[in-house]
Amino acid sequence: MSEEMNQDIIIGRNPVREALESGRYMNKLLILQDSRDKHLQKIIDLAKEKRYLIQFVDRKKLDKTADGNNHQGVIAYVAAYEYVEKEELLERAKQKNEPPFLIICDEINDPHNLGSILRTADAVGAHGVIIPKRRSASLNTTVAKTSCGAIEYVPVSRVSNIAQTIDWLKEQGVWIAGMDMSGDTYYKSNLKGSLAIVVGNEGSGMSRLVKEKCDFVVSMPMLGTVDSLNASVATGVILYEALRQRQGE
Amino acid sequence: MSEEMNQDIIIGRNPVREALESGRYMNKLLILQDSRDKHLQKIIDLAKEKRYLIQFVDRKKLDKTADGNNHQGVIAYVAAYEYVEKEELLERAKQKNEPPFLIICDEINDPHNLGSILRTADAVGAHGVIIPKRRSASLNTTVAKTSCGAIEYVPVSRVSNIAQTIDWLKEQGVWIAGMDMSGDTYYKSNLKGSLAIVVGNEGSGMSRLVKEKCDFVVSMPMLGTVDSLNASVATGVILYEALRQRQGE
Repeated sequence: MSEEMNQDIIIGRNPVREALESGRYMNKLLILQDSRDKHLQKIIDLAKEKRYLIQFVDRKKLDKTADGNNHQGVIAYVAAYEYVEKEELLERAKQKNEPPFLIICDEINDPHNLGSILRTADAVGAHGVIIPKRRSASLNTTVAKTSCGAIEYVPVSRVSNIAQTIDWLKEQGVWIAGMDMSGDTYYKSNLKGSLAIVVGNEGSGMSRLVKEKCDFVVSMPMLGTVDSLNASVATGVILYEALRQRQGE
Repeated sequence: MSEEMNQDIIIGRNPVREALESGRYMNKLLILQDSRDKHLQKIIDLAKEKRYLIQFVDRKKLDKTADGNNHQGVIAYVAAYEYVEKEELLERAKQKNEPPFLIICDEINDPHNLGSILRTADAVGAHGVIIPKRRSASLNTTVAKTSCGAIEYVPVSRVSNIAQTIDWLKEQGVWIAGMDMSGDTYYKSNLKGSLAIVVGNEGSGMSRLVKEKCDFVVSMPMLGTVDSLNASVATGVILYEALRQRQGE
C-alpha cells in the first residue's frame, strides 16, 4: 500500500495517451501482455521514448487495479498533483514582498474552469488558489491540460472548510471580495492591497455562508439577456481589474 | 432537396438528446423502428413532450441520411442557426444610437470558446460577432450550449474574407483593435467609439495580414510563466475594459 501513496492512477487508452502527450511524469505503466492492439503499441512507443517503466501484466491484474473501470489494456501510475498548506500561499506573497493576492474557488465543478482560472492566476501573478476538499473539481489531467501548464506554477491549497479558511485569512489581514450579481460594480471597488477573490459555483454561485463572510461583494455589469458570465471569464475580468489597480492605474 | 434547405441534421443519441434538452427546436426526428433501446425511448419521450414530429424509419433510411456517420438509431432535423449580413450589425448599433461595438473572431476553432465569447458579447452589449466561413467554429449546438442562450440574441455574420471585411469596416468609420502579445497594455488604449476587437486563433493568434490591417494592437500584462490566456478569457477582459471606458470610467 505504501508504494501507492501520493500516486494517482490513469485508466484507459485515451486518458493515458493524453497524459503522456502532455508530458506528465509516470512512475509506471501496466500494459496488457501479448496484445497486438495498435493503440496500445503507440502508448508503448511513447512511454519507451520517455524511458518510463513498463510492466506487461495479465488481464486479471489490470481488472483488479482498475477496480471496475474499463482499462482497455492500460493503466498508468502518476505522481499526484501536490497541494500546499494555506500558510504557504501567504508565505509566497511575503517572499515576493507583495500584498497577498489569492483566489478562492467555492465549489467550481468543471475542471476546464478550474484549469482556466489557474492559467489566469499565473498570468496576473496571484500567489495561489484555494479550493474545498468536497464538491470541487480537483487537480487532475483535464485541469492540467486546460491550465496550459500553470498547474505546475500556481500553488493550490485544498481546505476542509472554506468559511473557516476565510475567517483565518481575515485574521491575517486579508480582505475578502466575493463575486455575485448583488455586488457593487467591480471597477468601482478597491481591489488593491491584501485580497482574496471568491468565485462561486458555476450554477449556484457562492454559498450563503461564504457570501455573508465576504468583506464586500463585486459584480459585473450585464447589459444583455443572459444573466451570468462563464465562471472562468468572470474571474479573468475581476483578476485583471485587480491587476490594473495594483499596477497603479 | 428544397425541403432540407436551411436545415441542419444532428446525428446520434447524445447529440440529439443534448439538443432536445437545450430546448433546440426540431423540425423532425427520424428514429429506428421497432427498437426497444431505452436510450432511444428516452429521446422519443422528450420529443413527444415537446410535440415534435417523429418518423419511425428502417435502418436503410437512417444509414442513407447519416451518410456514413454513426447514427445509433436517431437523426434530428433542426432549423439552422441563421447568420446575418455584416451591414445588419452596424444597423443594430445605429438603431440603438450607439457607436458600433463588434467582435471579429479570426479563426476561433473551439466551439466552447466561440460560445463563451457570444455569452460575453451579450453581457457587454456588443452589436454582433463576425466569423470567417473557413477555419472557424460555426454556430452549432455546442456553441449554443456554451453561450447559455446568447446565440439567440447576439447576431453573427459569417464572411468570406476577414481582411476585406476589416477594410469595409474601416470605410464605415470603425476602428480595428487587434489582440496580440506585441501590443500596448490594453487599459492604456482608447477603446471608446466605433470599435471592432479582433481575437485570433487559439494557437497561432491573428493571421499576419489581419494583424497588419489593425489600427492598433492591445495586449494583456502576463506576469507569470504561461505565455497566453484562454481565448475566451482574454476576450472577456478586453470587452469589459472597453465597456468600462464606454461607461465613462
